[in-house]
Amino acid sequence: MDRKNEKSEAKGKGGNKPPQSDKPEGFLQVERTANFQLLPKIVKRRVYALKRLQLQSANIEAKFYEEVHELERKYAGLYQPIFDKRRDIVAGAIEPTDEECEWQSDREEEELAEDLQKKAALEEKQADSAGADDPKGVPEFWLTIFKRVDMLAEMLQEHDEPILKHLQDITVKFSEPGQPMSFTLEFHFEQNSYFSNTVLTKVYKMKSEPDAEDPFSFEGPEIIDCEGCKIDWQKGKDVTVRIVKKKQKHKGRGTVRTVTKEVPQDSFFNFFSPVKASPDGMDEDLDLTLATDFEIGHFFRERVIPRAVLYFTGEALEDDESFEEEDLEEGEEEEDLDEEGEEEDEGEFDPTKDPPPAECKQQ
Amino acid sequence: MDRKNEKSEAKGKGGNKPPQSDKPEGFLQVERTANFQLLPKIVKRRVYALKRLQLQSANIEAKFYEEVHELERKYAGLYQPIFDKRRDIVAGAIEPTDEECEWQSDREEEELAEDLQKKAALEEKQADSAGADDPKGVPEFWLTIFKRVDMLAEMLQEHDEPILKHLQDITVKFSEPGQPMSFTLEFHFEQNSYFSNTVLTKVYKMKSEPDAEDPFSFEGPEIIDCEGCKIDWQKGKDVTVRIVKKKQKHKGRGTVRTVTKEVPQDSFFNFFSPVKASPDGMDEDLDLTLATDFEIGHFFRERVIPRAVLYFTGEALEDDESFEEEDLEEGEEEEDLDEEGEEEDEGEFDPTKDPPPAECKQQ
Repeated sequence: MDRKNEKSEAKGKGGNKPPQSDKPEGFLQVERTANFQLLPKIVKRRVYALKRLQLQSANIEAKFYEEVHELERKYAGLYQPIFDKRRDIVAGAIEPTDEECEWQSDREEEELAEDLQKKAALEEKQADSAGADDPKGVPEFWLTIFKRVDMLAEMLQEHDEPILKHLQDITVKFSEPGQPMSFTLEFHFEQNSYFSNTVLTKVYKMKSEPDAEDPFSFEGPEIIDCEGCKIDWQKGKDVTVRIVKKKQKHKGRGTVRTVTKEVPQDSFFNFFSPVKASPDGMDEDLDLTLATDFEIGHFFRERVIPRAVLYFTGEALEDDESFEEEDLEEGEEEEDLDEEGEEEDEGEFDPTKDPPPAECKQQ
Repeated sequence: MDRKNEKSEAKGKGGNKPPQSDKPEGFLQVERTANFQLLPKIVKRRVYALKRLQLQSANIEAKFYEEVHELERKYAGLYQPIFDKRRDIVAGAIEPTDEECEWQSDREEEELAEDLQKKAALEEKQADSAGADDPKGVPEFWLTIFKRVDMLAEMLQEHDEPILKHLQDITVKFSEPGQPMSFTLEFHFEQNSYFSNTVLTKVYKMKSEPDAEDPFSFEGPEIIDCEGCKIDWQKGKDVTVRIVKKKQKHKGRGTVRTVTKEVPQDSFFNFFSPVKASPDGMDEDLDLTLATDFEIGHFFRERVIPRAVLYFTGEALEDDESFEEEDLEEGEEEEDLDEEGEEEDEGEFDPTKDPPPAECKQQ
């Protein structure tokens, strides 16, 4: 679970703030190190002692995150019955009771969109009276989520859609205590004509200890690697490749021949064949692709799986987007008129520099 | 402790991605709701059941965060001896042993900045030989941090600096079990000529349960309110106000009189007199000021207090900034030459649209 919101919803800084230093960033950087270098030896020595204490802190912090991971494992067990019920309702395996379907804002929502409601009522009637189109569970539940969440829609190709109609559940499993920290995303499919697997998996391996080389950068568990799975495609059904015919001209002889070749093709299912990090960390494109993959894995775990229905209805999307769009402005106008008449300042009080009194009132 | 890094360090999306939908945002928003409204009644009913399950999840999540808070309280106890030692070294109450000051990169750092080192060596010698300037502990430790961290430097005024030289420690205290969730920042001052308080406090009250009105927006504890403290300023030492003389002209009679008036003035110490949220939530400026205050409170708790020495040396600053500056570009060039000769495509394979093969390799 993501705790970033504990920061309150403020994303930018605003209000009446004195202007920032106008020194260029590079200068500040040097100045910062310089300040430390210029400390008397005896003080520097003490600061090294503080840094050693900081190392001890980082190691305690690592233990804290291990315990949080334990907690997450414990809570995964508490969520499971709810997720199981969700899966069963989505698949149509169980029909919820009237009580289980009561929703207070049901009426409100429908009032909000009267024309849509009429259209819906019509379709409902048609569907109900015909009885022909009796949908099972919530059709295309997960596919709809893939289409609606930008990060997933970016991976989704037209040829993936018929396959994802068979996706019945996505779950997350945490590593066992004592094992290296990881989580596994499991994509559960009903029997289909595309591949024989019933579960596709992606394991995200995590590291939850300070790096020996750079211990102070530690801020909790980090995804460090991932592993996909082999998809047993039925013959000719693999959407991650495309067969192309190619003409090849021999450089020396000038003869031309035609060969068929499988070339990779965009597909969500490439998610199960992740790239490997460049060994020297020098391939930026590769590392960026991997970073995006890690981000998607984290997003499945933290957002999509725990609150799937809200992505299905669009409610979670609106939240995410309104948050991103927030654009805070700095500075503000103030109006502060003296009650008794016009005001002339004699002191150094400058109303354009000081905050308006409302902001400084003692409570 | 902030767990945002678990998301890996990726901030943007990049790599080879198909172009996004070009539908305008407003349309998408309507489309999202519409999709749900147009579902057959029987399916909508099941989705309401899923939403009720989601409410149960939110309540379990609230309990999870309460347990995390318990863990944080427990770990606060484990960190305390380290923080106490930091305080004592900073104040000069204890002198660390040689062993406690050993720092491997000591030499490296000094080699990196030879000229600075020479200058420092000179100053060291002067200080050492004179013996006159024998600094106690780490002078201006906290003031230096205030100056270096942008978010704090924005609040800092020149008249605050002599006062903050007396700041000896900043600590955080968590609310007791069973009490409403909160944390208190404590600013510990040595005796000084500005105010008689030895501790200035700021309490941040938190809420860790889904809001009845909007339960799905719950994402963990959120700061909802804060409370400062009364500073017992010595006469004439209050830097949060300024005395100004004003001429006032009576509107009717036209007579002029001079009055003295205390007007608010920018100061870090206004941090202890926070504004109150507008009761109707309609005063955007006020709410923005408060949101910034919450952000600062969170920053003290999560960053400054746990890793003060890294802000003092500048190490944490470099991390923060390089992270912010990262600017990911979308799309990339590819080079994919056929080994045997020139390649002419016959199929629909378009190398500008498909990912380069390296990205699609099965592992």
